Amino acid sequence: MNDAPSQATTIDSAEVKHWHTETDVLIVGGGGAGISAAIDAADAGAKVIVLEAASEAGGSTALAGGLIYMGGGTPTQKACGFDDDIEEMYQYLLQASGPNADIEKVRLYCDRTLEHYDWLTRQGIVFKPEYYPEKHTNTPNEAALMITGNEDAWPDNTHAKPAPRGHKPQIKGDHGGIPLMKNLLRSARAKGVDIICDARALNVIKDGEMVVGVAARIDMQVRYFKARGGVVLTSGGFIMNREMVADYAPRLARGNYPNGNPNDTGDGIRMGLDAGGVGVNMDEGFICTPFYPPKQFVESIIVDETGNRFINEDVYHGRLGSAILDRPEGRYYLIIDSRHFEILSRPPMGGYPVAGTGESIEELEQELNLPQGALINTLTAYNQCAKNAKDPTHHKSPKYLTPLDQPPYAAFDLTVGNGAIFATMTFGGLDTLPTGEVITAEKQCVPGLYAAGRNSAGLPRCAEGYASGMSIGDATFFGRLAGLSAAQRHLD
Amino acid sequence: MNDAPSQATTIDSAEVKHWHTETDVLIVGGGGAGISAAIDAADAGAKVIVLEAASEAGGSTALAGGLIYMGGGTPTQKACGFDDDIEEMYQYLLQASGPNADIEKVRLYCDRTLEHYDWLTRQGIVFKPEYYPEKHTNTPNEAALMITGNEDAWPDNTHAKPAPRGHKPQIKGDHGGIPLMKNLLRSARAKGVDIICDARALNVIKDGEMVVGVAARIDMQVRYFKARGGVVLTSGGFIMNREMVADYAPRLARGNYPNGNPNDTGDGIRMGLDAGGVGVNMDEGFICTPFYPPKQFVESIIVDETGNRFINEDVYHGRLGSAILDRPEGRYYLIIDSRHFEILSRPPMGGYPVAGTGESIEELEQELNLPQGALINTLTAYNQCAKNAKDPTHHKSPKYLTPLDQPPYAAFDLTVGNGAIFATMTFGGLDTLPTGEVITAEKQCVPGLYAAGRNSAGLPRCAEGYASGMSIGDATFFGRLAGLSAAQRHLD
Repeated sequence: MNDAPSQATTIDSAEVKHWHTETDVLIVGGGGAGISAAIDAADAGAKVIVLEAASEAGGSTALAGGLIYMGGGTPTQKACGFDDDIEEMYQYLLQASGPNADIEKVRLYCDRTLEHYDWLTRQGIVFKPEYYPEKHTNTPNEAALMITGNEDAWPDNTHAKPAPRGHKPQIKGDHGGIPLMKNLLRSARAKGVDIICDARALNVIKDGEMVVGVAARIDMQVRYFKARGGVVLTSGGFIMNREMVADYAPRLARGNYPNGNPNDTGDGIRMGLDAGGVGVNMDEGFICTPFYPPKQFVESIIVDETGNRFINEDVYHGRLGSAILDRPEGRYYLIIDSRHFEILSRPPMGGYPVAGTGESIEELEQELNLPQGALINTLTAYNQCAKNAKDPTHHKSPKYLTPLDQPPYAAFDLTVGNGAIFATMTFGGLDTLPTGEVITAEKQCVPGLYAAGRNSAGLPRCAEGYASGMSIGDATFFGRLAGLSAAQRHLD
Repeated sequence: MNDAPSQATTIDSAEVKHWHTETDVLIVGGGGAGISAAIDAADAGAKVIVLEAASEAGGSTALAGGLIYMGGGTPTQKACGFDDDIEEMYQYLLQASGPNADIEKVRLYCDRTLEHYDWLTRQGIVFKPEYYPEKHTNTPNEAALMITGNEDAWPDNTHAKPAPRGHKPQIKGDHGGIPLMKNLLRSARAKGVDIICDARALNVIKDGEMVVGVAARIDMQVRYFKARGGVVLTSGGFIMNREMVADYAPRLARGNYPNGNPNDTGDGIRMGLDAGGVGVNMDEGFICTPFYPPKQFVESIIVDETGNRFINEDVYHGRLGSAILDRPEGRYYLIIDSRHFEILSRPPMGGYPVAGTGESIEELEQELNLPQGALINTLTAYNQCAKNAKDPTHHKSPKYLTPLDQPPYAAFDLTVGNGAIFATMTFGGLDTLPTGEVITAEKQCVPGLYAAGRNSAGLPRCAEGYASGMSIGDATFFGRLAGLSAAQRHLD
């Protein structure tokens, strides 16, 4: 269902003449956050209803690669021979979150990462204890474990000891979200959670300051759901709502590939704002241009229109996308030599058109209309770095410092607007405590209202530091806490 | 008065037992926006009260340089021999506002810029028709007119025809905010506006959905002010509220020099959020490192720790500050030769320590611990640009392309945290219509509530595109509209 977004405002409970049904915990949105909330609320003894706008539950999590960011020595890490340490994971995530970090959430997320791993396996999720060692957006085989961020790239590798922390539920290839959500949904249903699909939440219902339910449209009729414990908003981000993107995160509008499902229209965020919550981190989001696979593209150089490199080309694809969007508008090229061109088994994932080719680097420089000598200088310096196995200016790992000295050369176009994929999703949402409680501008809780996943601002805080697995890790973990908080509020 | 920020939540009018007084338009904050609102509300026939938290009105506007961004052929521009065009001003401001631009506000601001100039002169403000042609943060003499942004720097000069548009009320030196506010306050008082100082607004009072007044603390007592037309929030930004900066604009926390007055604690924004408004552009702000004056520093090169230039050194100081904070954390240097050093009449404004000196550029390169050859290459290329009067990579104007070839050399340290000034103020606030009406997440007006100045998100939208004069221009112009709207709501 791709309904128009609701024009939500809160409803006074005194105006509700007939409650359709009552429950302990009412969850808006049946994706990774909502179903995790439902499971832990049900485990705490609460009666739980989930309202899902689409005709099937799963949300954007089901459409995702399914990677979950966990560490500190998970059984999968250990089986693959990796040591990891919760403190290293904490240091990594803290600096990866940038200035907007929610330190309390990062701390709790790391302290409980092994418990969360156990919880996921208890829901039936299997992580095949196999490590995939190459640069990729996801493991192309059934392997669970890979490095999914900038852990081993400069400067992150100077802040914390790298470890692979992306864990994919077992499936061949990219679609780890499917086994993840299948298992979570099966577990939730087995615990008696009632998941109502084609049910679009419209308004939060309040009794004075207290949130007591939600109005939802089902079969073209508005029905009123009462929640004795609380309402948990988990209906996803707002990347599909162009007006909200323009208002809150206009930088993301430059992307051409919104990541998510058609119901990521920010309705839950707007319902929470109407109920007294405030939005934080609203301008931030994921901005990625997938320049790998193929992994050989990591051995390229990436230059701007001055012919200069500006980044270590072994960064996570999100950091490259973010860097290009943060820099002045201009032309960007990925340059390889024949050795890398010939081993291409398929066109690059990023959808980059060929911008030019040259029998020599001089010819390519001319064809790309770069300042005379600029590309030649850059390449000469780079090949010297490769020879020295040291990149003093941009700190690319020696592992990927291969000379580009086998003409002919080719350049792919990474310029925004020329066809390259710049994928985006939102990282902003309601301000919440780690318990999921929605708070006002005055840091007071809105009684009865909780949020998790991308209806809240959680672990993922900036494009530059993002790693695959942070979103689903955050959604499932803090979803659980929000569900539990709502259940306990009723039962206490 | 530097009170702790209030813990505002809205008050139900039914709870108000005694109204201290009634008025048509109640304005919270007596700075540039508030007093402009008061003048136009009074001119429309409304009874106006202004509540000012400090012991004197004036706000941050009174502390500022006083520049006002106006163009399209103002009498001052014409007297100084400058042609300007409203369309050129519009194009400039539109791209200077970046992706977050409020197009409607930019359009209206430009269309009425000549009318606003007239209005200011009618309040008694004098602009001495003299042009100051050098790079500076303000005119050091009594001259009114100067270029205050990136109008003549690349790439802005490719988008619109440059013109000087900063207008300073007449005074010798930097303190144009003083004659500006003196005149506005004199005008407001002459029109019968009642300005109550030492009055801290605490809460918005609502009757149902409608804003009907404000509770304020005066002489340690809470008093209730009723507003028949509307409440106008104009109490400034939140740069002095470290918690709000951390929540909403954490990047600004890296600055070391908050621009504003101690009452810039965001109280008005929080009162508006409590009353149903939403914050937009909350992460953005001014980030400036004043590398000029002296004007000769524009003839420097500015390099990062790779020894490379990254910007045209003739940009506005705000764009340099923003660029450094947007780039990876690292070291930044401003490099001059003996010719520029010797003409220094005073230490650089930016508070930059000397990072190194060298009899040769090689020696300086070593002293700064830059990669071998990097600075030499950069300087060789730059001096070639100077010889050619063309900078193909960074597009610095030939006007400032002077070779740096007279050793000894010196480097000033522009690194964040090493003493360089990085001044900050906030650009985020309540979402408003150009009329000043505060709107909700659902784009519905909050009846009776208006905002302007830095309680709203207005013309200034991003550090990179900011020009001096945009803030006061925005505050005074949209302040007027907000005051008029509130007055008309009552009188209609």
